[in-house]
Amino acid sequence: MNNLTIRNLSHVMGSKKISCSSFMKKNPHWNMAEVKKKTGINYIYESNENEDVLELSYKSSSKTLKKFNKKKIDSIVVVTQTAKNKLPSVSCVLQEKLKLNKNVFTLDINLGCSGFIYALATLHSFFSSNITRNTLLICSDTYTKFLENNDRTCRTIFSDSASSCIVSAHSSNISPVFNFFTDGSGANDLIEKNNYIKMNGSGVFLFTTKTIPNLINNLLKKNNLKIKDIDHFIFHQASKLVLDKLKLELKIPSNKFHINYDKIGNTTSASIPIVLEELIKNKMLKKNNNLMLVGFGVGLSAACCILKWK
Amino acid sequence: MNNLTIRNLSHVMGSKKISCSSFMKKNPHWNMAEVKKKTGINYIYESNENEDVLELSYKSSSKTLKKFNKKKIDSIVVVTQTAKNKLPSVSCVLQEKLKLNKNVFTLDINLGCSGFIYALATLHSFFSSNITRNTLLICSDTYTKFLENNDRTCRTIFSDSASSCIVSAHSSNISPVFNFFTDGSGANDLIEKNNYIKMNGSGVFLFTTKTIPNLINNLLKKNNLKIKDIDHFIFHQASKLVLDKLKLELKIPSNKFHINYDKIGNTTSASIPIVLEELIKNKMLKKNNNLMLVGFGVGLSAACCILKWK
Repeated sequence: MNNLTIRNLSHVMGSKKISCSSFMKKNPHWNMAEVKKKTGINYIYESNENEDVLELSYKSSSKTLKKFNKKKIDSIVVVTQTAKNKLPSVSCVLQEKLKLNKNVFTLDINLGCSGFIYALATLHSFFSSNITRNTLLICSDTYTKFLENNDRTCRTIFSDSASSCIVSAHSSNISPVFNFFTDGSGANDLIEKNNYIKMNGSGVFLFTTKTIPNLINNLLKKNNLKIKDIDHFIFHQASKLVLDKLKLELKIPSNKFHINYDKIGNTTSASIPIVLEELIKNKMLKKNNNLMLVGFGVGLSAACCILKWK
Repeated sequence: MNNLTIRNLSHVMGSKKISCSSFMKKNPHWNMAEVKKKTGINYIYESNENEDVLELSYKSSSKTLKKFNKKKIDSIVVVTQTAKNKLPSVSCVLQEKLKLNKNVFTLDINLGCSGFIYALATLHSFFSSNITRNTLLICSDTYTKFLENNDRTCRTIFSDSASSCIVSAHSSNISPVFNFFTDGSGANDLIEKNNYIKMNGSGVFLFTTKTIPNLINNLLKKNNLKIKDIDHFIFHQASKLVLDKLKLELKIPSNKFHINYDKIGNTTSASIPIVLEELIKNKMLKKNNNLMLVGFGVGLSAACCILKWK
């Protein structure tokens, strides 16, 4: 059996840090006190003109690779929906920019807030088939490049960033376990059209609060586990409203339920690995801890995963 | 061990069939006799306004699913670089449009002419980890929507299409074997910028003719096989110039080297499965035949695969 290890987590944020209160300068009718009660977000980060997905991914990956032997990298996987060019894929360009092996397996996955978990499932599968052993995994998006200035719902939530890490195969008698869900009937609830991203917040909220508790409970049940057996819950950092509701419904204790949306906003697929990086830096993860990772959003798509920490 | 079976292959072409000779009406200075000597392509197919990647994928998938129990589909994988919307992914939208299970694993892969083989490697891996067992796999692109009318290199080659099939896990003592290659230094040789796709034909040609023979020979060698042990070669249908050169260099007999670019042009990631469909319809594949599939192009990216036919 195969488990996976996640190492060398790094991230970069878009370089323009914006206090959400400052949105009222250009939009005086936005009641940011009310908005912040719902979102819980104090700051978002915008990429500047020169910071596209490729550039943010490159910067973050350079940090990740500082203490890892580049020659061991046999695959590059990039989760993104907002690359500057439709083609070629970001992973191919990174091969050259990062001077990695040419006999690498490169894959760009088009997914948003559930993307990190779909990517882990994909890598776990590559390790099972022995197609790859050491992957440079990157989650990066620049949603703010595709938002209208007067779009309160999106502007006060989304941040640009890239998160990167090395995911490696690791022989073990324990495998990560996953549960997946897709409901394309909500495709229009978070969509890019004519270069603008629009979100129907209440549609995504309803999908999430209806889907996620079942998805988690089914995965726990299938593996004879209960909420109390999980040491750390790392949810996609959508917003306060969604996370408070899920935490309450699932009766997750506060000390196990980790958040950072207040400080950096919703970074789509990068949000889960950025929280994970914070927990590692704060030495909060112990060997053999059970981690529950939960992603949900655009698609509409959801996934959760239980991972034994190495 | 796991092998994979590929069934229910179908495809649709963009609905506008265009004789390449007719390009001279609008571009009288194009010497199409000379062009055709190089490309070997007589007809290309353009999608009309209503035919985007989603629509072509839906039409093709509907044919593929006619004789397959939809309830068995546990995953949808779409290989595309030219979807109309950056988000959500086409696979998510297809879940609803095709009325498939909601507990499906959905994945859009951003790759071009090597995409079918990367997708097979991904599915083989999913089957190895037991994450999925029956995948609806679709390769679709609409490059012609992103071409300038006066771009001779691209206009006389690329066709819009979707190819779909069911790929299933199949217990076997034989696994498919793969070889992968990425060279991001040629990223600009086939790139979309500001909504236009541009190709440096000679750059892609040089990459292909330099890379592919080694890639194939290394895979054969690693598996103690020779060219004569392969029953059918199915290469990405790039153009006559490229395929003639590769066939000659690798000394592949004509009766084992299958082409259809003359009739339908270069359909990017769909080209390999469309040839495969043709071979099946013509009853040319026998049980236990060794198939060599070879993809190369945008990225620049290449891959080959030896598959025992079931």
